[in-house]
Amino acid sequence: MPTYLLTIAYDGLPYAGWQRQAGQDTVQERVERAAVQISGGPIHVEGAGRTDAGVHALAMAAHVVLPRVWEPGSLRLAMNANLPPDIAVQAVQPAPDGFHARFHAKGKRYVYRVVASPVRPAIARGYYHWVRRAVDLPAMRAAAALLRGRHDFASFATNPGYVRRHGTVRTLQRIHLVQRRHGFDLCVQGDGFLYNMVRTIAGTLLDVGLGRRSPAWVGDVLAAADRRRAGATAPAGGLYLLSVLYEPQLLPAEPAPPPGESRLPSTIAADQMAE
Amino acid sequence: MPTYLLTIAYDGLPYAGWQRQAGQDTVQERVERAAVQISGGPIHVEGAGRTDAGVHALAMAAHVVLPRVWEPGSLRLAMNANLPPDIAVQAVQPAPDGFHARFHAKGKRYVYRVVASPVRPAIARGYYHWVRRAVDLPAMRAAAALLRGRHDFASFATNPGYVRRHGTVRTLQRIHLVQRRHGFDLCVQGDGFLYNMVRTIAGTLLDVGLGRRSPAWVGDVLAAADRRRAGATAPAGGLYLLSVLYEPQLLPAEPAPPPGESRLPSTIAADQMAE
Repeated sequence: MPTYLLTIAYDGLPYAGWQRQAGQDTVQERVERAAVQISGGPIHVEGAGRTDAGVHALAMAAHVVLPRVWEPGSLRLAMNANLPPDIAVQAVQPAPDGFHARFHAKGKRYVYRVVASPVRPAIARGYYHWVRRAVDLPAMRAAAALLRGRHDFASFATNPGYVRRHGTVRTLQRIHLVQRRHGFDLCVQGDGFLYNMVRTIAGTLLDVGLGRRSPAWVGDVLAAADRRRAGATAPAGGLYLLSVLYEPQLLPAEPAPPPGESRLPSTIAADQMAE
Repeated sequence: MPTYLLTIAYDGLPYAGWQRQAGQDTVQERVERAAVQISGGPIHVEGAGRTDAGVHALAMAAHVVLPRVWEPGSLRLAMNANLPPDIAVQAVQPAPDGFHARFHAKGKRYVYRVVASPVRPAIARGYYHWVRRAVDLPAMRAAAALLRGRHDFASFATNPGYVRRHGTVRTLQRIHLVQRRHGFDLCVQGDGFLYNMVRTIAGTLLDVGLGRRSPAWVGDVLAAADRRRAGATAPAGGLYLLSVLYEPQLLPAEPAPPPGESRLPSTIAADQMAE
């Protein structure tokens, strides 16, 4: 039976995250329900990872094994016809037998968006994190550089059970800050992310950006391997799963356009209002 | 008793529009409730106009007469402390006795945002209007030019009662289209707007942009002075009240920064995702 890789965008606000949970409205369950509707039997859709309630995805990856062969464009349209408007399959690719969206993922990219504005923004609040004061971007960049590379990120993970099972060493291949008119985007790419890792990095870097801590403190936090040393977990609404990375040779068909930081979403906010 | 001009941003999604209505959650009622809480007695807040359910405002103007003098910054903070997070007073200015936000308004600016993308966007859907096909911007610009200036806009108004009382001749001082990565912003400034006028202009120009009509057809629609001739009323979520214009000499204090088109909001959407 053929396997397909689905690239799925969704709005995190109305859902209790990606992962199926009894009694909760989740993205995974909605996608599975759509797959069942187009194919009959029970279908399992496996995502490349989880996102929490309120976290958005521009391109979650998930695989599905279907009872018959579909032309990718037709499968995309059929799925979208059975999905709610805030979940949309963006692309479909045939995948080799045994392809697994999570096990074969080589990395992920995330963006965390912060709006810094003295006046509280009112519009589209679930799509960024607002801070009242201007941020010191050079200081944050100096701090972010300390996190780049292969490290034990235990200080940035909030799920001890998961941590014990999988270890806490990860590689952040990219971490950089993109200035916006008011605020910034924190862009990260890594081979894997611990639970709440991007949001904890965001909260920790904000402590530096808002002058509460020095850049060097982030090095101390990292070395401590103790979650209590890091900053707060920044709110879910600022976080976007930008893409899931796979080896190109694993997906022989024309791949979805490679996602770069310029694909970042852009949120209605005070940050767009200045002259 | 002193009068203040409040500049108010709000998210249109959760509210049944600006105007107070029995049994409905409206922005005006929320702002009045906040004014009552900071000042005791019953307070009336009068807006420069109405916005429908789902229409957003970056800078609605409203005046309020309060029992005592406030320092503008303190009044802003006090109001915001009593407003829900999706309504925020952006600025407060002292206004002369007898100042009236609606009667003294000299004009308004609006933006209507359209995202054109073959794949349905999923995120932040209440903040733009999505069309599936690319739009012909030069054709839309040619059509928009026919609407610029002083005209009878009866074809673009959907409230006959209002129309009879106030007439249908208005001046569109500015109407232009700003291309975005995928889609466009329709920016208009006029001395006044009929009910649903901007949304009807947007829907009518989209008929041209999507190739269903020629630019010249918009001139025919205008000349007909008949709402049935125009295009559809485009959805509320794409519309933003950008600012309300007053004579500068009416507001002696330092005015809020003049709002220009570069203050446009920017919505999370597929239009930001291309490389």
